[in-house]
Amino acid sequence: MQLIYKGKTKDVYSLRDGQILLKFKDDVTGENGVFDPGANTVGLTIDGAGKSGLKMTQYFYELINSRNIPTHFISADLDDVSMVVKDAQVIGKGLEVICRYRAVGSFFRRYAAYSEEGQKLDRFVEVTIKDDERGDPTISDDALDMLGILSKSAYQELKQLTQQICDIVKDELAKKGLELYDIKLEFGHDKSNGQLLLIDEISGGNMRVYKDGQYVPPLELERLFLSE
Amino acid sequence: MQLIYKGKTKDVYSLRDGQILLKFKDDVTGENGVFDPGANTVGLTIDGAGKSGLKMTQYFYELINSRNIPTHFISADLDDVSMVVKDAQVIGKGLEVICRYRAVGSFFRRYAAYSEEGQKLDRFVEVTIKDDERGDPTISDDALDMLGILSKSAYQELKQLTQQICDIVKDELAKKGLELYDIKLEFGHDKSNGQLLLIDEISGGNMRVYKDGQYVPPLELERLFLSE
Repeated sequence: MQLIYKGKTKDVYSLRDGQILLKFKDDVTGENGVFDPGANTVGLTIDGAGKSGLKMTQYFYELINSRNIPTHFISADLDDVSMVVKDAQVIGKGLEVICRYRAVGSFFRRYAAYSEEGQKLDRFVEVTIKDDERGDPTISDDALDMLGILSKSAYQELKQLTQQICDIVKDELAKKGLELYDIKLEFGHDKSNGQLLLIDEISGGNMRVYKDGQYVPPLELERLFLSE
Repeated sequence: MQLIYKGKTKDVYSLRDGQILLKFKDDVTGENGVFDPGANTVGLTIDGAGKSGLKMTQYFYELINSRNIPTHFISADLDDVSMVVKDAQVIGKGLEVICRYRAVGSFFRRYAAYSEEGQKLDRFVEVTIKDDERGDPTISDDALDMLGILSKSAYQELKQLTQQICDIVKDELAKKGLELYDIKLEFGHDKSNGQLLLIDEISGGNMRVYKDGQYVPPLELERLFLSE
């Protein structure tokens, strides 16, 4: 296998059969040594962070696949801390699709004039473009269409798929007394047939989860969620 | 008449008959002594700036009213540097509706990864909330609806009205060899009957206009545009 990209939290290898292997690392994003899933820089290294993220990812992807929602996930190898996925082309230069159930984070920072911190939101979806230099700006469906990134109908498909997937994650977390406040997904198109697929990981690093009104950090989330 | 609000570039008075008088000032927005229509702070005072803005505003409002598009404009008094308008309720705590014909300013700063500076845009509309403290963030139609600021259908009405008005302004400028790159409008609801109205001024301070590829500052724009 051949290394094709060294990411902030995962390295990407191409396999001989056209599939892709994602190797999860113990590097996590953050700033000033504090883990922050929303940050754009690697802030620190935590032993076991990669494996923890992979366990969550495997759990959610197997569940989502079983609901016949198209994803890139093929298999996970916990010992190797890696997973095999379909080769997908990111949308544009990469988009992040955020689904919000409560007004926290950047949503609240922007719209505090019209919202209370933590107020319920009805599966609010917004898209940001991956552009570290420009702080991952949000982008509207009109702009996605005008700039040739995503058509209006493709946006609607993306939005519906996002809400469907995030509701699954939210319901699963709720079974353990955990509440999903917001979550960030990525999508791509299957290089073999163009199908829209959920890609990347689904772990504590992509979501804000609270228990009894207290934020649950990613590694603790995995322990709470995957324990019997 | 009674002063009800001192704005950055205009003072607002209530008249006895329920109408409103807007008194244009020579203060203009900008930073570090440089006139910048997009800025949130008063940067400098320019003799004649108020009257210049009012002349442009009168010209465009009389034209737009004549096309049967609902606006707040009733009359202008150039000697008094003031205009009389219908009393309108701003949307939420105030929205700005931007219509873009070319990728410049904050649009280009956000989407440089997907656009060339100055590239043509097809009457791209976006809304920002007036919130100096938070840098006037953009807001999507989904968020406007979810936060109870504007319903989806009201947003569509706002967007179509914006494009219709801005095309009128663009065509008028084009007759003098001037090209509209982008423009910022405000809307409100007529307090007497709830009708959606174009409000505020329409002048060089609300738009970016170019001539032969060179930016034309607001006062020069008025001289070029309103000269015979």
